[in-house]
Amino acid sequence: MTELASLQNHQVRLAARPVGMPKRDNWKFTTEPVGEPAVDAILVKTLYLSLDPAMRGWMNEGKSYIPPVGIDEVMRAGGIGKVIASNNAAFAVGDLVSGGIGVQEYKEFSAAEIKRSGVFKIDPRLGTPTQWLNVLGMPGMTGYFGLMDVGQPKAGETVVVSGASGAVGQTVGQLAKIKGCRVVGIAGGKAKCDWVVDELGFDACIDYKNEDVRDGLKTHCPEGVDIYFDNVGGEILDHVLGRIRRSARIIICGAISQYNNTTAVQGPKNYLSLLVNRARMEGIVVFDYADRYPVAIAEMAQYLKDGTMKSKEDVVVGIETFPETLVKLFTGENFGKLVLQVAES
Amino acid sequence: MTELASLQNHQVRLAARPVGMPKRDNWKFTTEPVGEPAVDAILVKTLYLSLDPAMRGWMNEGKSYIPPVGIDEVMRAGGIGKVIASNNAAFAVGDLVSGGIGVQEYKEFSAAEIKRSGVFKIDPRLGTPTQWLNVLGMPGMTGYFGLMDVGQPKAGETVVVSGASGAVGQTVGQLAKIKGCRVVGIAGGKAKCDWVVDELGFDACIDYKNEDVRDGLKTHCPEGVDIYFDNVGGEILDHVLGRIRRSARIIICGAISQYNNTTAVQGPKNYLSLLVNRARMEGIVVFDYADRYPVAIAEMAQYLKDGTMKSKEDVVVGIETFPETLVKLFTGENFGKLVLQVAES
Repeated sequence: MTELASLQNHQVRLAARPVGMPKRDNWKFTTEPVGEPAVDAILVKTLYLSLDPAMRGWMNEGKSYIPPVGIDEVMRAGGIGKVIASNNAAFAVGDLVSGGIGVQEYKEFSAAEIKRSGVFKIDPRLGTPTQWLNVLGMPGMTGYFGLMDVGQPKAGETVVVSGASGAVGQTVGQLAKIKGCRVVGIAGGKAKCDWVVDELGFDACIDYKNEDVRDGLKTHCPEGVDIYFDNVGGEILDHVLGRIRRSARIIICGAISQYNNTTAVQGPKNYLSLLVNRARMEGIVVFDYADRYPVAIAEMAQYLKDGTMKSKEDVVVGIETFPETLVKLFTGENFGKLVLQVAES
Repeated sequence: MTELASLQNHQVRLAARPVGMPKRDNWKFTTEPVGEPAVDAILVKTLYLSLDPAMRGWMNEGKSYIPPVGIDEVMRAGGIGKVIASNNAAFAVGDLVSGGIGVQEYKEFSAAEIKRSGVFKIDPRLGTPTQWLNVLGMPGMTGYFGLMDVGQPKAGETVVVSGASGAVGQTVGQLAKIKGCRVVGIAGGKAKCDWVVDELGFDACIDYKNEDVRDGLKTHCPEGVDIYFDNVGGEILDHVLGRIRRSARIIICGAISQYNNTTAVQGPKNYLSLLVNRARMEGIVVFDYADRYPVAIAEMAQYLKDGTMKSKEDVVVGIETFPETLVKLFTGENFGKLVLQVAES
């Protein structure tokens, strides 16, 4: 195991909490030697990291559904890695795993982390490593349980999803189609809109960068909206609230338009539409459904296998690009699930 | 029946749609002769009219859960009246009835209106006429079904209700106490706060006119808020959103702070608290529960009878005071359910 001792772990740590859009100087790069894993621990080499809008929230101080990342801590990130040393009988060298790796090249998972399922083996037969960060990972699970449990779609209903070509959006839209709904996406730019319609089979897509969203909703949802899966917040949420049907369900998954605000979040001015329409707005946090991930993964893997579901990942190479790559999420430059490739194998 | 012909019906009609707070010149006063009721119709003399925040919405143009009152139409209002002439076998002269009387001294209910339950007999043994506009009427039904069906309270949970001394608020708070919850009211002024605590048995009440609502919620809801029954919207909704617990339910019943806005409604800036707390915000319109009113009325009448529930009505005398009396709702001058007494008997 002298070989481990020669490895250097490059890491990205939070240097300062950003105001507005994160910049390179919010981060610092460190290097640590890689050691032998402790008793019952494993050492994992990072292959792919998941970059998610939620990361912006973790950079802020204050109470949320999980604690913020501390200053000087390695930035939190889920990812896929390969076991390169194991003192735990449940893991063998070469196993692919998914877990809270953080933005770094190597991660030792302690016995305690393993025990509380902070890392688990993935089955490469069910999907590629990047699909395990997308449809079969947190975004897919978020879309699945948000749509199915909170949204409770019925065949024939109209489902609108914002961030339609993103990680969560692509899952939600395709799943809603599979469940017999009419699906209208909202995305930024013609390429994304064309893709969700032509490749994923959405019934329509509104290009919020070049079209009037209110007009688009009128055209594509003539009878109103039964379910809105909201990833963006802001004006778009208000436009959809203005077109919901009676007993509509609005799933609050995120509000990416608001995450880099330097002023207060923009509240939905049309929220009284909930009253008029006896409608519901409800938040979802995916971790609550952890005990049902296996069932959802099995279902989604089957869709991937039989081709009823597709996935698209936007893979950027190199841990050193992390600061700029993360920002792509907030400018809408990513196309598909944003993944940082740290190593190929 | 020559006696009927001598009667004059004084009416209040909508003359112009208000901008902001309604003023006297938004109304016009008309007088019409009272006629014999038609075949199968009844003639009702108005005793008490219910004045409600929702009336402000009915004065606006535009789609809502019911159509707006038209210009020159008699203003819509629910009320209690006495049958003074009947051509319908189901009603006898002297019966007390509840229905959509409108702001006028006499109302003929046609056979069609009777058929669609636009008017029904009330049982004076269950409550006084003004209680039939309060706990046993629309506000009571709104409070009952909003709390029980949308809120689904569990014993031991913390319930916050705004407009606590108002018609809906007093029902919600007392019912929540009966169901074993801890109840914190929000009301304007010491007198109202003292009353809901001392007379109605709320655990606490925050005087939003003289106290910091956020501090009050911190003090009186140390473990957070499970259910918020919102009658007011605005800043108070945001303060409560900042203190909700996991899986909280927010019942959107109204937003009286916003009804006379001349600018856009203020959306809840803290709505992402729904996400963090996996909470739900849902609207209620009482009419949806019409088939279950009898069950709720029976339950509430029992509470009134055995003294576990009290009611307070703020009775203003004289149909000619209608324009100014209505405004009391929006300035918070009413104390208890606001009722306009048109005739004593």
